[in-house]
Amino acid sequence: MNTNTPNVAFQGVAGAYSEEAIRQFFGPGTGTLPRETLDDVFQAVEAGAVDRAMVPVENAVAGSVIRTYELLMAHDLRVCAEVILRVRHTLMAPPGTALDDVERVRSHPQALAQCQRYLERRGIEPEPTFDTAGSARDLAADPTPATGAIASSLAAQLYGLDVLATDIQDFPFNYTRFFVLSADDPPRAQRSKTSLIFSTRHHPGALYECLGEFATRGINLSKIESRPRLNRPWQYIFYLDFEGHWQDPPCEAAILGLLRRSSFVKLLGSYPAATTPVRNDSC
Amino acid sequence: MNTNTPNVAFQGVAGAYSEEAIRQFFGPGTGTLPRETLDDVFQAVEAGAVDRAMVPVENAVAGSVIRTYELLMAHDLRVCAEVILRVRHTLMAPPGTALDDVERVRSHPQALAQCQRYLERRGIEPEPTFDTAGSARDLAADPTPATGAIASSLAAQLYGLDVLATDIQDFPFNYTRFFVLSADDPPRAQRSKTSLIFSTRHHPGALYECLGEFATRGINLSKIESRPRLNRPWQYIFYLDFEGHWQDPPCEAAILGLLRRSSFVKLLGSYPAATTPVRNDSC
Repeated sequence: MNTNTPNVAFQGVAGAYSEEAIRQFFGPGTGTLPRETLDDVFQAVEAGAVDRAMVPVENAVAGSVIRTYELLMAHDLRVCAEVILRVRHTLMAPPGTALDDVERVRSHPQALAQCQRYLERRGIEPEPTFDTAGSARDLAADPTPATGAIASSLAAQLYGLDVLATDIQDFPFNYTRFFVLSADDPPRAQRSKTSLIFSTRHHPGALYECLGEFATRGINLSKIESRPRLNRPWQYIFYLDFEGHWQDPPCEAAILGLLRRSSFVKLLGSYPAATTPVRNDSC
Repeated sequence: MNTNTPNVAFQGVAGAYSEEAIRQFFGPGTGTLPRETLDDVFQAVEAGAVDRAMVPVENAVAGSVIRTYELLMAHDLRVCAEVILRVRHTLMAPPGTALDDVERVRSHPQALAQCQRYLERRGIEPEPTFDTAGSARDLAADPTPATGAIASSLAAQLYGLDVLATDIQDFPFNYTRFFVLSADDPPRAQRSKTSLIFSTRHHPGALYECLGEFATRGINLSKIESRPRLNRPWQYIFYLDFEGHWQDPPCEAAILGLLRRSSFVKLLGSYPAATTPVRNDSC
C-alpha cells in the first residue's frame, strides 16, 4: 500500500471492508485515507484531500446505510461507480496461536452476530468492540492470550496476524454494495445505472405517477426505497436506481417528467453497472 | 411488572427499548418475556408460550430491520398493531455517582454513535457492549467506579441505577417503529393500515403495473422498499404498506390484482394505523 499518495478515502481503520472494496476496484497499490466517520469521508473529497471516496450504501443482511444517503443528500458529490464486495469474515490471532487455543474473539457486534453459529459450535466467547479492523489492529498491538479477532483477511495481512479460519459467517451470501464518489461525473459507460433521490407529496398515486415516467419508457428500476421525511408528516423521500444513463434520451425524458411531478429531484450520478465484483475501468 | 404471566415476547434483556414499546402500548403492568434472538421471539409466539410479540421493523436512523422482514416471510404470524416509540437515550450510573464523575459509558455501538457529540462534549469515553439494557444490568450487578451506561429510562428503573441525564441523543428525532405480532387477526379498526410482501419478475414496468392496482383505486402507500431476491438475479422482493384494511372492497380488489401480476404475495396483516405514540385499543 502506497500511503504517500492517498487518493481514496473510506470510513474506518486500515483493513476495513471498505478498504477491501477499494483494493478490489482500484487495485492493490491504491493509496487510501482512513477517516473516523462517514461525514469526514465526504468532507475529504469536498476539500480535495482525496480524489475519490468508497462508501457503503447497502448490505444484504443489514439493509441500506441511511447515513450515507443522508450525506449524499447534504453534499454535492457524484456517484461514479458501484462496487459489490462479498463480505468474508476471517478469524485471526497473533502468530503462534492455534485455532483450538482461541477462547474469545473481538469484533463489531454485527460481525459477531453474523458468525454466531460458528462461534457457538467452537465454544468461543464473543467480545464486542467498535469495529472489525480496529479489533485486529488493537490485538496485534497488545496481544492477549487465547484471544482472536474477526475482520477482513486484509486486516490480518496488514497487522501481521495469522489467519486461523476463513468464511466463518453463518450465511455465505453476504455482500455490501458501495458507491465510489468523486467531485466530477465519470465518462459515459456501455451499461450504465443511475441513482437519484426524489420526494413526492402525499396524494394517492403520487409515487405511481412518478414511476410511470420510467415504466412507460421501458426503463428498468433496480432499487426503490421510501423514507419518511423528517418533520414533514405524509411526505416521503425515495431512493431510486434505474438502468441507463441520464443522458440517454428516454432517461432524460423520464427525469424531466419526474422533475415536473415531484417536489424535488437530486441526481446522484450515472455510473457503470456492476453485475459481479469488478475492477476499475472508468473512474 | 408481573413476571408470572408473561404474555408479550421481545428480543433483548429486561429494560430494552422493545420492552418500553410494550409498556407504552399495552400498559405498564403487562407481563413480558425477554428472548435472546428475534428468531426465538417468533418461535415463542408460534409455540404458544406468549400471546404476542413486539418486534422492531424500522428505525429513523438505522433503516429497516431486515431480519424482522425475513422472519415475517418465513413464519405465518399476523401483524396486529404498529407502535411508534421515540428512542430517548438515558445516561445512568450506580447510586451516588455524580454526572461529573463519569469517565466512561457502556452501551451498544449504535447507541454510543447516536450520543457521540454529547459524550465528546463531556469528555466521556465510550465502551462498546452487546446491548443497551444489558449494559445497565451488568453495571448494576458489578458496579465499576466512574462508569455509566446508556439505555432506556426503564432500564435505569429496573436495575436501580440513578438517571444522570436524559435525551442525550445528538438527533432529537429518533424513533423506532414496531409491529405487534400474534397468531390471529385483530378485530377491524376505524383507520387501518395493511402490510404485505410481494415479488415481481424483472421486466420493465413490473413494479409500476403492481402499484397501479393501488393507485388507480386511490389507495395511499406509506412504505415501499425493494430488496434483491437472494440467488435469483433480477428478481426483487418488495415490502409494502398501504392505508386501508384488506377487507375494504378497493383494497381487496387491489390485492387480487397484485396477486395476478406478481410472483407471490404474502399478507402480513391489517391493523390500526398509529399516527402518534398510542396505547392499545385493539390487540
